[in-house]
Amino acid sequence: MSQSLSPAVSIARDLIRCPSVTPEEGGALAFLETLLKARGFTVDRPVFKDADTPDVENLFATIGSGAPHFVFAGHTDVVPAGREADWSHGPFAGEIADGILFGRGAVDMKGGIAAFAAAALSFLDKAGDAFTGTLSFLITGDEEGPAVNGTDKLLAWAAERGHRFDACIVGEPTNPDALGDAIKVGRRGSLSGVVSVEGVQGHAAYPHLADNPIPGLMRLMTALNDVVFDEGNERFQPTNLEIVTFDVGNPAFNVIPARAEARFNVRFNDSWSQETLRDRITQVLTQAAGPDLKWNISFRRDGSDSFLTRDEALIAALGKAIEAETGRTPELSTGGGTSDARFIKNYCPVVEFGLVGQTMHKVDECTPVADLDRLAAIYERFLESYFAASVQG
Amino acid sequence: MSQSLSPAVSIARDLIRCPSVTPEEGGALAFLETLLKARGFTVDRPVFKDADTPDVENLFATIGSGAPHFVFAGHTDVVPAGREADWSHGPFAGEIADGILFGRGAVDMKGGIAAFAAAALSFLDKAGDAFTGTLSFLITGDEEGPAVNGTDKLLAWAAERGHRFDACIVGEPTNPDALGDAIKVGRRGSLSGVVSVEGVQGHAAYPHLADNPIPGLMRLMTALNDVVFDEGNERFQPTNLEIVTFDVGNPAFNVIPARAEARFNVRFNDSWSQETLRDRITQVLTQAAGPDLKWNISFRRDGSDSFLTRDEALIAALGKAIEAETGRTPELSTGGGTSDARFIKNYCPVVEFGLVGQTMHKVDECTPVADLDRLAAIYERFLESYFAASVQG
Ligand SMILES: [Zn+2]
Ligand SMILES: [Zn+2]
Repeated sequence: MSQSLSPAVSIARDLIRCPSVTPEEGGALAFLETLLKARGFTVDRPVFKDADTPDVENLFATIGSGAPHFVFAGHTDVVPAGREADWSHGPFAGEIADGILFGRGAVDMKGGIAAFAAAALSFLDKAGDAFTGTLSFLITGDEEGPAVNGTDKLLAWAAERGHRFDACIVGEPTNPDALGDAIKVGRRGSLSGVVSVEGVQGHAAYPHLADNPIPGLMRLMTALNDVVFDEGNERFQPTNLEIVTFDVGNPAFNVIPARAEARFNVRFNDSWSQETLRDRITQVLTQAAGPDLKWNISFRRDGSDSFLTRDEALIAALGKAIEAETGRTPELSTGGGTSDARFIKNYCPVVEFGLVGQTMHKVDECTPVADLDRLAAIYERFLESYFAASVQG
Repeated sequence: MSQSLSPAVSIARDLIRCPSVTPEEGGALAFLETLLKARGFTVDRPVFKDADTPDVENLFATIGSGAPHFVFAGHTDVVPAGREADWSHGPFAGEIADGILFGRGAVDMKGGIAAFAAAALSFLDKAGDAFTGTLSFLITGDEEGPAVNGTDKLLAWAAERGHRFDACIVGEPTNPDALGDAIKVGRRGSLSGVVSVEGVQGHAAYPHLADNPIPGLMRLMTALNDVVFDEGNERFQPTNLEIVTFDVGNPAFNVIPARAEARFNVRFNDSWSQETLRDRITQVLTQAAGPDLKWNISFRRDGSDSFLTRDEALIAALGKAIEAETGRTPELSTGGGTSDARFIKNYCPVVEFGLVGQTMHKVDECTPVADLDRLAAIYERFLESYFAASVQG
């Protein structure tokens, strides 16, 4: 580590220098293992395997054995850099210019891990032997990829070994514009499906001998697109459906095609479960189809239900720490895409808070180093508050 | 020729035995050349060439030099046989079983050519030197293919050599169910176009940052599909638009696509020209789009206008011949797809009449031999009537 850098910035820079594009470990987990073992953590590096997807390394680090058990969750894998020539600083160089740390993963989410590691080490140093709780890191290398050999399996692996978590923060970049903007306290669910209509192929000059499936599918998909599922509520945006594709693939102008297919994705709030939503969609389509249309719907199995974290103590402790360090009252948000929190919520209350997400997945991903230090301070203040009763000061 | 077969059946069988799948001449034009030269016709076999399409042989045969000048038009090329094993008789064997002649081209339209050749030879034999009109054959080998090196160029070729036609019959299979059902006295026009909508790509979880082009294109195409262009009229079916494809090609359920495209084809009657139809379509789309949608339409250049043959003498002469031979009053039809009549109509009045089309382009294409003889009788009766004033009997 460079003398002039804070622990959070130094760790973030070292992690960025590990080229851990999913599913490559890239040295990132090894670096964390060394860092945490040096402070007394017990570290495991389980590798998970599955059919048709690469093997992936993961890390579980834990210290202490008493209650409560807090776990920080995150991922060291990153999306590809794209054209490296487009970057003003090398995506894996970890360069700092004018107070900005550049690199793939700077905000999503090596920066978040670095801030939490710095916070945890400082907290444990200050608490010393007086710490009687349990503090763990649950870090995967498979979040940006298929997410099959990552957090989901790591949670089951930890549960089998007797670890029971009381609360979790995921360090994903949750702030749209400035540090302190938003805590994510839940996620919308996701449901995808395929709608098809069968017609009868024929010549465009003899339409009475054919049955064009396209108008029928347009009728179905227009009906689906027009549904107002709900108005949203205090914690969730309105449920939203997007038609993501509509395909026929007929190259001939004089041929009426035999089949048309469209696909949709719904992001839904806690007014719905996957089951009630499937029923509603099927009902809308059935009504729009009428008795004569030959149509079909199939829902994909990779859907997820919405969830809302109701642990007010966890949310309040994090919110107060954010306010104290940034002066901002964070919005309690449930917007945006899915994250590994969808797996963690089955084990313990979970919220998400990290850096500012604007540059995530983009060229010149970066974060002000000041944000790294402030995020570390927020996390440390949270740990002090969360473990207040467990530190025998 | 076999002793037991009529001239029409014998010629049809010999033509079927020539494997003249577009663009192959297959011996069919050579056979006709020999047949017609023997009766005193002057025969030319011009070969036409163009970029990106095979060279194709054609035939022009003519006898006489006085007025009126009648021309019979047709094609010896055929569509492929498909799986020969699926045929109950070889597609190029010309077998007759239970009074049915089987083979590719039996009805579309070697049978029509054979019937007219038999009719013409019989008519000329009977008229002898008393015939003072002109009788021609305009036969192409490029009707089922791109139709670039066929009738269109053969008409120009004949015009350059001073041939002026007064009337034409095309021997395409025009009868839906029984010989005598229908004369085609015109064709609808055809117009094709491509409609596209540009949106903004994005993540399905952040629809406010994206702009899905699919609902907009569905709105445009639904408006287009709902247009009642006209109710048709005495001679023409209603104008009809078919959306022939609708494509996005987005493989990802979590991505809102950037662009969607649909294609359509219109078959239109004589209430419209290509230009008025383009205007109407553009107007409908403009209105459906509203001010904010980014959309585009492009029309294809291969459109054709509708036409209606108004030569009542030609239609009446053919109609009477049909009634005399079949007892049926033919419907005067303008339905169905395009044919080479769309080129001929620019040179002279043209109607179409031939065999029963049910088996055209199918496995086991066939015609009753009785229909061949009756069609030859109809054509001969027509020639007698048409040339009545030109045969100095
Ligand atoms: Zn992430
Ligand atoms: Zn034909």
